[in-house]
Amino acid sequence: MTITIVGVGLIGGSMAITLRERGFADRLIGVGRRAVSLDKALSLGLIDEKMDLEEAIEVSDLIVLTVPVDALKEMLPGVLDRITDRQVVIDAGSTKEKFLASIREHPKRSRFVATHPMAGTEYSGPEAAVPGLFDGKCTVFCDVQDSAPDAVELVKRLYETLGMRIVYMNAAAHDLHTAYVSHISHITSFALALTVLEKEKEDKAIFELASGGFESTVRLAKSSPDMWVPVFRQNKENVLDVLTEMIHQLSHMKELLVKEDFDNVYKLIQQSNEIKRIIK
Amino acid sequence: MTITIVGVGLIGGSMAITLRERGFADRLIGVGRRAVSLDKALSLGLIDEKMDLEEAIEVSDLIVLTVPVDALKEMLPGVLDRITDRQVVIDAGSTKEKFLASIREHPKRSRFVATHPMAGTEYSGPEAAVPGLFDGKCTVFCDVQDSAPDAVELVKRLYETLGMRIVYMNAAAHDLHTAYVSHISHITSFALALTVLEKEKEDKAIFELASGGFESTVRLAKSSPDMWVPVFRQNKENVLDVLTEMIHQLSHMKELLVKEDFDNVYKLIQQSNEIKRIIK
Repeated sequence: MTITIVGVGLIGGSMAITLRERGFADRLIGVGRRAVSLDKALSLGLIDEKMDLEEAIEVSDLIVLTVPVDALKEMLPGVLDRITDRQVVIDAGSTKEKFLASIREHPKRSRFVATHPMAGTEYSGPEAAVPGLFDGKCTVFCDVQDSAPDAVELVKRLYETLGMRIVYMNAAAHDLHTAYVSHISHITSFALALTVLEKEKEDKAIFELASGGFESTVRLAKSSPDMWVPVFRQNKENVLDVLTEMIHQLSHMKELLVKEDFDNVYKLIQQSNEIKRIIK
Repeated sequence: MTITIVGVGLIGGSMAITLRERGFADRLIGVGRRAVSLDKALSLGLIDEKMDLEEAIEVSDLIVLTVPVDALKEMLPGVLDRITDRQVVIDAGSTKEKFLASIREHPKRSRFVATHPMAGTEYSGPEAAVPGLFDGKCTVFCDVQDSAPDAVELVKRLYETLGMRIVYMNAAAHDLHTAYVSHISHITSFALALTVLEKEKEDKAIFELASGGFESTVRLAKSSPDMWVPVFRQNKENVLDVLTEMIHQLSHMKELLVKEDFDNVYKLIQQSNEIKRIIK
């Protein structure tokens, strides 16, 4: 099968490596705006060749769009305009509702399958691509009733080849859920990094004692604004809801500390320990 | 050397294993309030025998207090009352200023060395003890000018045996720095866990998409309130300062999202990416 990856970075590149290794793809074409990035992907062997988008669409069975969600929204109608009824297009974006609404009436809507593989690291670009990134993780299929059964079937096989578990969800639920279990984690990491970096301006040695706990909570603050600003833009309402609740929880904790109400601080920590039920 | 560990949990237990393995200790005595915990430590082979505190002090060269910082503050004067000028006492507490003030005038102050090995996991109790927990990490020695040189020398050898790098700092600086690079990470993890657990009450499936990023930012929310409430009590002022700044950062992010000022969101994320300089 010939697959085009548009945006050969962490996600697209890791897909490329794994799909080739496992015999799903036999020709991999890379498309991208940044020539440097594309040449890197070529020299790393992630893709076999690079092409313009139009050219690549013509020769591909499957087109995988792994670009930031703003670019995705802009690009998708044009891609659908050019495909036949035997081709399939997928995305890997972290938000769904806004851009799905923008192609709702498109005559080729059914050739598109909206997916979100929930895997990644805080790194980006083709150098960050690794085989096995998706193994055992979950991927979300959104609004599959709007996609053709044969297209869904093909994309299911693709994700099964990547070793992923498939979860079905409508776009609205997906965007709400990812705001809670992904987007807010990034915002708190960014804020934590800013808090400590701010302190560093007056106290150069502030990081001397940073250890594992700090590293794990702040790790996501290495994530690229090119990916995350579009996510926050497109999922603004949900992100604001969670962010408001997060600020409320921190303010509540602060209030209890100010009042020295340590019994209730104890109870809150005990409640938060409930998370053991979720993460092992 | 005979060493007594008071509170044989994650830290005390891990010290015990490693100090025995590396030939620093040849007799390890456990002391603790909870008989179940102590019997567990005995059956795991962390300690050779259990004793009452008074009894244990009499036969030990070194007494290691790895109890929550409130218990430490309460217990320390009584321990110092009972030791001779050839014995040494250390702690491993996450805060220093408050309890050091409470023993400032103690006639045996110089036999005490205040230390904080910056290592740990989100687990607690003797079952959580592991060898090599401290390897390559840093430990803080506070206010060493108040300890006798021979006591400091012994404790240096102990931490070098554990494989730790020693950092010297006064108690006030220690408490400020740990508020920034440790205590606030725990508070944000607790708050994040509470935020999502709160949502789960109305939406049972909210955790279905939780992936690596969520797990790393929320991992510390598994930490015990028995350890952390005393830390927040004793380091209240510093923790409140950082918490206020953290709420400010999150509120600023919220304000920018509300205004759809995504250029400045982009700039903030770029600034937070600076953290790459600190964590690799």
